[in-house]
Amino acid sequence: MHVIEQMTKTNPQAPAFDESALMRCIEECFACAQSCTACADACTGEADPKALARCIRLNLDCADVCATTGRMLSRQQQPDTELIRQQVELCALACRVCAEECAKHASMHEHCRVCMEACRRCEVACKALGTPTAPRAQQTARH
Amino acid sequence: MHVIEQMTKTNPQAPAFDESALMRCIEECFACAQSCTACADACTGEADPKALARCIRLNLDCADVCATTGRMLSRQQQPDTELIRQQVELCALACRVCAEECAKHASMHEHCRVCMEACRRCEVACKALGTPTAPRAQQTARH
Amino acid sequence: MHVIEQMTKTNPQAPAFDESALMRCIEECFACAQSCTACADACTGEADPKALARCIRLNLDCADVCATTGRMLSRQQQPDTELIRQQVELCALACRVCAEECAKHASMHEHCRVCMEACRRCEVACKALGTPTAPRAQQTARH
Amino acid sequence: MHVIEQMTKTNPQAPAFDESALMRCIEECFACAQSCTACADACTGEADPKALARCIRLNLDCADVCATTGRMLSRQQQPDTELIRQQVELCALACRVCAEECAKHASMHEHCRVCMEACRRCEVACKALGTPTAPRAQQTARH
Repeated sequence: MHVIEQMTKTNPQAPAFDESALMRCIEECFACAQSCTACADACTGEADPKALARCIRLNLDCADVCATTGRMLSRQQQPDTELIRQQVELCALACRVCAEECAKHASMHEHCRVCMEACRRCEVACKALGTPTAPRAQQTARH
Repeated sequence: MHVIEQMTKTNPQAPAFDESALMRCIEECFACAQSCTACADACTGEADPKALARCIRLNLDCADVCATTGRMLSRQQQPDTELIRQQVELCALACRVCAEECAKHASMHEHCRVCMEACRRCEVACKALGTPTAPRAQQTARH
Repeated sequence: MHVIEQMTKTNPQAPAFDESALMRCIEECFACAQSCTACADACTGEADPKALARCIRLNLDCADVCATTGRMLSRQQQPDTELIRQQVELCALACRVCAEECAKHASMHEHCRVCMEACRRCEVACKALGTPTAPRAQQTARH
Repeated sequence: MHVIEQMTKTNPQAPAFDESALMRCIEECFACAQSCTACADACTGEADPKALARCIRLNLDCADVCATTGRMLSRQQQPDTELIRQQVELCALACRVCAEECAKHASMHEHCRVCMEACRRCEVACKALGTPTAPRAQQTARH
């Protein structure tokens, strides 16, 4: 979190979101990308990966969406606010469907339970981001 | 295209989209991810990259979105159809805003013109995909 | 290939590799990233994905390595030549080990056979790239 | 870190590295991928991005390499140990060259200083990982 905070605050362009909500969301996106990548892998190592095929698939989708969201939110220069808004909304959906699938296996596989919680935290953080404001012009950028 | 076609047809699960529209869209997503990555790089090498800062930013966003869309569409197992629908719609938007920005620089920078065209082809391919059908059950999968 | 060629030629900085070898390698990296993503997915949909767990794992590794290599080679500005050299060498290795694993399943699963061939083409293209030349200074960049 | 630890420990396959060194390295890879993505963006927003073109380029390369390394290390199933060893070594190199470039701008741009430190921590974590052990057979996997 510390690095995310420092990088957010030292960008010459102020972010299009509330700073603390943004930092939280970036952190949860990277954490969820990691946990979904790890959960897909753990699922293939279980005794019956066939029963986890949908979990693996949604894990891989969610990992990719969260990675892209985390990168997009890490950029503060002149965003397209509608694009970012839709990306964050999509990310909340990816996290929700992945969490729902992980929930079905959470009592049998601890990695699915941990991943479900990471997805839910990321979904909450995406929803808490709110609507991006139009970026201030470069001339009026801070510092 | 040949490999995309073979991989699409040999998956044990039939795709949730019309096959030829799907193959075209996957191809355009990977091509657009490449051209946007290259355009961002070329922009930083121009005499005045400051004037291209928004183009660089949208190139990087579009490259990430197209890469994620291309990967998601390359998976055919048990998708969440609403998630895919929204990802493809988002990808069309990312391509549109990037193409619009590239268009502003297309007369001065040939890489922006080429990239604009790649974005527009990808936007068209995303829109032509249509609505995913609910995946057929595994039991009825082909072959 | 056409877009890759146009983007390579319109970059203000000439590439650090022979142009036709570079374009071929970029193309094969993106194609292999696609086929490995698709093969991992197809493997999870087979009757016995447990037997394909190592194939899935190496497919996912190879897809990520090829995507990163394709992006890195798409950038022509002021590279670190030793970093690029090692990335391309690593990519050849990722493709080789993935092709070897796919080969074990190629007679049973057509997607493994197609993916094996994509990996081998990418390995060949990486090896054909040769050693990057030190980038020419920006001042002497073409056009 | 907490999620990375839980995901590492709940995978049915024990990792090929010392657990605490592995968790640290995964964390630093994701943190460095974020800081490099953010530094590239911040650089394009500075008054003279032309002077930062090499920093932007190496930031983007390093972000991609760290993301791939973080994903690969998050997988514990049946790795190719030589591939992982080379990926981790490459990642240390990507972090070193990026840190060296960021260092040149650290006194003028705080984001370059923060990013340089993230790269150095990641380089150290990669070097501390050591050599992967051959994975234990699935049958002898824990739990």
